Amino acid sequence: MIIILRKGSVKEDAQVILDKIENIGLKPLFLPGVERIVIGAIGDERLLETLGFDNFPQVEEVKPVLSPYKLVSRDFHAENTIVKIRDVSIGGHDIAVMAGPCAIEGEEQFLQAAKEVKKAGAKILRGGAFKPRTSPYSFQGLGILGLKIMNEVAKEVNMPTVTEVLEVADIDAVAKYADAFQVGARNMQNFRLLKELGQQKKPVLLKRGLSATLQDLLLAAEYIVAEGNQKVILCERGIRTFETATRNTLDLNAVPYLKMKSHLPVVVDPSHGTGIRSIVAPMAYAALACGADGLIIEVHPEPKNALSDGAQSQTPEQFQHMMERLKDFAQAAKRGF
Amino acid sequence: MIIILRKGSVKEDAQVILDKIENIGLKPLFLPGVERIVIGAIGDERLLETLGFDNFPQVEEVKPVLSPYKLVSRDFHAENTIVKIRDVSIGGHDIAVMAGPCAIEGEEQFLQAAKEVKKAGAKILRGGAFKPRTSPYSFQGLGILGLKIMNEVAKEVNMPTVTEVLEVADIDAVAKYADAFQVGARNMQNFRLLKELGQQKKPVLLKRGLSATLQDLLLAAEYIVAEGNQKVILCERGIRTFETATRNTLDLNAVPYLKMKSHLPVVVDPSHGTGIRSIVAPMAYAALACGADGLIIEVHPEPKNALSDGAQSQTPEQFQHMMERLKDFAQAAKRGF
Amino acid sequence: MIIILRKGSVKEDAQVILDKIENIGLKPLFLPGVERIVIGAIGDERLLETLGFDNFPQVEEVKPVLSPYKLVSRDFHAENTIVKIRDVSIGGHDIAVMAGPCAIEGEEQFLQAAKEVKKAGAKILRGGAFKPRTSPYSFQGLGILGLKIMNEVAKEVNMPTVTEVLEVADIDAVAKYADAFQVGARNMQNFRLLKELGQQKKPVLLKRGLSATLQDLLLAAEYIVAEGNQKVILCERGIRTFETATRNTLDLNAVPYLKMKSHLPVVVDPSHGTGIRSIVAPMAYAALACGADGLIIEVHPEPKNALSDGAQSQTPEQFQHMMERLKDFAQAAKRGF
Amino acid sequence: MIIILRKGSVKEDAQVILDKIENIGLKPLFLPGVERIVIGAIGDERLLETLGFDNFPQVEEVKPVLSPYKLVSRDFHAENTIVKIRDVSIGGHDIAVMAGPCAIEGEEQFLQAAKEVKKAGAKILRGGAFKPRTSPYSFQGLGILGLKIMNEVAKEVNMPTVTEVLEVADIDAVAKYADAFQVGARNMQNFRLLKELGQQKKPVLLKRGLSATLQDLLLAAEYIVAEGNQKVILCERGIRTFETATRNTLDLNAVPYLKMKSHLPVVVDPSHGTGIRSIVAPMAYAALACGADGLIIEVHPEPKNALSDGAQSQTPEQFQHMMERLKDFAQAAKRGF
Repeated sequence: MIIILRKGSVKEDAQVILDKIENIGLKPLFLPGVERIVIGAIGDERLLETLGFDNFPQVEEVKPVLSPYKLVSRDFHAENTIVKIRDVSIGGHDIAVMAGPCAIEGEEQFLQAAKEVKKAGAKILRGGAFKPRTSPYSFQGLGILGLKIMNEVAKEVNMPTVTEVLEVADIDAVAKYADAFQVGARNMQNFRLLKELGQQKKPVLLKRGLSATLQDLLLAAEYIVAEGNQKVILCERGIRTFETATRNTLDLNAVPYLKMKSHLPVVVDPSHGTGIRSIVAPMAYAALACGADGLIIEVHPEPKNALSDGAQSQTPEQFQHMMERLKDFAQAAKRGF
Repeated sequence: MIIILRKGSVKEDAQVILDKIENIGLKPLFLPGVERIVIGAIGDERLLETLGFDNFPQVEEVKPVLSPYKLVSRDFHAENTIVKIRDVSIGGHDIAVMAGPCAIEGEEQFLQAAKEVKKAGAKILRGGAFKPRTSPYSFQGLGILGLKIMNEVAKEVNMPTVTEVLEVADIDAVAKYADAFQVGARNMQNFRLLKELGQQKKPVLLKRGLSATLQDLLLAAEYIVAEGNQKVILCERGIRTFETATRNTLDLNAVPYLKMKSHLPVVVDPSHGTGIRSIVAPMAYAALACGADGLIIEVHPEPKNALSDGAQSQTPEQFQHMMERLKDFAQAAKRGF
Repeated sequence: MIIILRKGSVKEDAQVILDKIENIGLKPLFLPGVERIVIGAIGDERLLETLGFDNFPQVEEVKPVLSPYKLVSRDFHAENTIVKIRDVSIGGHDIAVMAGPCAIEGEEQFLQAAKEVKKAGAKILRGGAFKPRTSPYSFQGLGILGLKIMNEVAKEVNMPTVTEVLEVADIDAVAKYADAFQVGARNMQNFRLLKELGQQKKPVLLKRGLSATLQDLLLAAEYIVAEGNQKVILCERGIRTFETATRNTLDLNAVPYLKMKSHLPVVVDPSHGTGIRSIVAPMAYAALACGADGLIIEVHPEPKNALSDGAQSQTPEQFQHMMERLKDFAQAAKRGF
Repeated sequence: MIIILRKGSVKEDAQVILDKIENIGLKPLFLPGVERIVIGAIGDERLLETLGFDNFPQVEEVKPVLSPYKLVSRDFHAENTIVKIRDVSIGGHDIAVMAGPCAIEGEEQFLQAAKEVKKAGAKILRGGAFKPRTSPYSFQGLGILGLKIMNEVAKEVNMPTVTEVLEVADIDAVAKYADAFQVGARNMQNFRLLKELGQQKKPVLLKRGLSATLQDLLLAAEYIVAEGNQKVILCERGIRTFETATRNTLDLNAVPYLKMKSHLPVVVDPSHGTGIRSIVAPMAYAALACGADGLIIEVHPEPKNALSDGAQSQTPEQFQHMMERLKDFAQAAKRGF
């Protein structure tokens, strides 16, 4: 950790800080510059953080040297982590595609969607039972009934499932009926939820928040892993920027960056990342090209009747076509599909 | 609602939509333009939303005419709503200042802070018992113990209190020990929490999310009011932008804009909105000048020993000075203080 | 154009606007709704814009139906435009790669870079003679001398060239020594420069501004095309967002979106779009996968001695490797390379 | 400057850098940490920047200790700089209000506007002759004719003037007819223009770019001051964020931050900063409250007939009312008006 003192600070101002660093058992460094005094501290920065040097009046800026996350870091664990949702691996050689409708609207709709996505080659079934919606007047999901439908349909088509969990109180129900938890963008910093999921055995698909930096995302994953659940899949799903032509700005830079900094698998959601049906497919190809381990795609048997997110849902025909072309891109990326 | 069809759409494409509008009991309008067919629908747009026209393949864009929120709108309720936290009114003639430390760290610290802010003229006591923190390695608050300390200190200094509630499961405890609920920026779209708070009797201070538009904020408030709790106070606390010199970008435009669109009171949090101790005071003055009904300010007896957010906390001396100058700005704004 | 009047507006408020629309020769529509009066105008919206309806006190909002750009729109010109820089086509079947150092630092450096990029398969040589730099204390480019070096090296390696033009006064010099003009991100809305380039014969590579929406970019292109120069290549190079882990946020959504809305070719600059050497290649692959017509890549013979942007420059070895892999992605995208 | 090496770097990797620092005449520091080697360099960082350490493969990150600007810094010049536009001081005790229409549309309109703003108490007359417009189909200003009108009207009402300069080629004309140059947001990083203005004698009102950080703005000012013209006035006019309810997000944090870091005067443009007529006044009050040295306000005799930016222009009556209330806020801020 590097601590820069304000202009005009004197030796005594520095000494207070040097002493605190030494008292905590680390090695302090006194670096008097021409215009500013700089102090260094060698050792575990996470320990230093508790000293709150940025609160000191004589401190202008504190610059950490190490990343604030640890367990999710590639420094800490060099090999790729492979997370399994039932028998489907994510983060290994093969690309995994998760697909299904935004919301589970009923048994017929969900079964039809499930059959279509399975036929096209999707390996994991997705669908929302609990739907976080910006407006209180929008469809809010079928809740537990939706979970039960998901469970039955999944058995019928023999696919593992992933669905969103909104709250600690729902964890048990989701764990009972689905194979993996999804944490939505709006809940990425619902730390209580993250901690509870850290004590679960099933995998967690963690979506990046609309205004979360990649460091924030990795720290959210750290919350889960620190509690003992190492089965975390990171998901880039678009961030909020000034651009309004697309629903969100899909930040594909995140994919190679996260793969460089972390050992966790990374998947991409081009449906929410674009919000425009006709550009979901090219962005799915791009996601594979830059190193994504998987995709999560909204497919609805009849998008124009969808109760949620129809404008970004693929028709079964579009999805089938996309899957065929994805094979070529997976091959170019030297990945299995 | 205005619906613009894609280029090349024909009468039949329009007819499907016109029929749907008529079937739902509203008045459809067919407006064939030179380059595009436009369709209008006259009536309650919230009803139209359920038809999901943006999912139709022939639709290029759907443009709502009305705002998607209703109960919180000034169109619906022209007079200012005054929310009372115990005996302190917010949204009326007088400015209300809420102050206290970011986190309740112990009885001594909190009592000292409470006495200092009361002496300086603050009317409501704030302090966090449950702390949402970006890193799992940071101080997470004292929890229930913190609530109890808050409760006892509040009695001793005779001030109403506000504190953050993180989760549905904590609502009862917060309701028991505090006088108002605070919903933090990261929970602004925790819709389950909003709905439950809508069924409570105590007021809710609703902070704007880091990437929430003002429309998102008003829709979040609508969630609470729609459940029956009309005691909602909106809070601007800074948004996330590309600017990193300050912790957040305090969007004071929000104050007159929200006052124009909504009847709810609006307060400002310049501590989180700036993140820099020395510019909290000027931004507090600015908040009053542009029409804020109140302020929420972090004050710590010894900022350099604060366990959370010390860099943006005022010392008691700074706070006292700020309060004195705020009187002049309240007067210029023709408000009581 | 749809014009929404404020609540409380009456027939007379509407009549003023209806008359103005009629006077200009277009067809007005009066649509009295339940909560708001809406007015429609059928005809060329660009004409309507001159009436400034958003300035009228009774007007709440003006919603255009058509895009404000015309000549660059795919509505106006359905087929892809192919722009040729000397004999290299951009926007057709084949992918075009432009490569070279950020700045021309001297003859030796630039010749070496040119030979390396040509050997690896780049078709167009890039390099900056005039360098816009955030700090006045950074290297500002060799100016005219740089242009002359570019010209000579280009002859020696027989490659067409592209280089940035910063100002109207430099247009002639750039036109004399290079084969295409580059308009940098900071100049995307230097409208005087755009107009002058519209009167030139050589192609223009137009980079998206750091905070430019895609509509802003298309309007900037419209400035050039409206003056007569149809040889415009759009370039996505990253936008400024809250994310600081990467230098910019490369908005690849822009690629399929621009291809959908416009007939102009679209290229991607993953060097500026990421700012991190090791993630340039994966983002180049992604750009091809989502439909880019070309790439512009910074390659420096010795990045660690680069006078500008070394941290994002590829070594010749890295570039050669990237080019080999790009072939596979071009093939997956069914494009020639 | 602090240089952090990548994990796995060894003593030799550090030595190369230590030697370079020593060779340039500065003092290198070798700080081997537990997880990373850190190198420090004591001395003028602007010198170190030329060494391009961030280009070295062994370097993970370079963290500057000092700000990259110098001449505009308060460290360098502790007292407030007062800039005079003719006889009106900006940056001293008194608040200066600049007002007038967005565009000069003709002699009659401009004279009427000038008389109105003078009557209400504005000290400086503003108006645009050269208008940068997003669309090529919008009104582009009267050019030289506009400058001449400005000049004559200014004589008649005896007010100093400020107007935008778009290009180096126009500097002489603007210098001839106006009393101060305005650099618009889109030109804030038109470095050639900044350098030329640095050689002029008249003051420069430098507007912050739509996506410019405060550091970028200070570096743009440094360009001007480094060439010899110290008469620079900084102007906050709103930045581009995800919020679309207002035209821009007026970042008033910028005011106390810039006053803390720099000795230059700071003014605020609430007209562009909001884009909504009815919230310009409250934001003007807020600007004074947080420490602005002046305001620049759009006033049009008949906003609904304005050729540019009518929706954000004040009527003369609104402006007069605003000026009366501004007096109270100036007094609260202990400033003259």
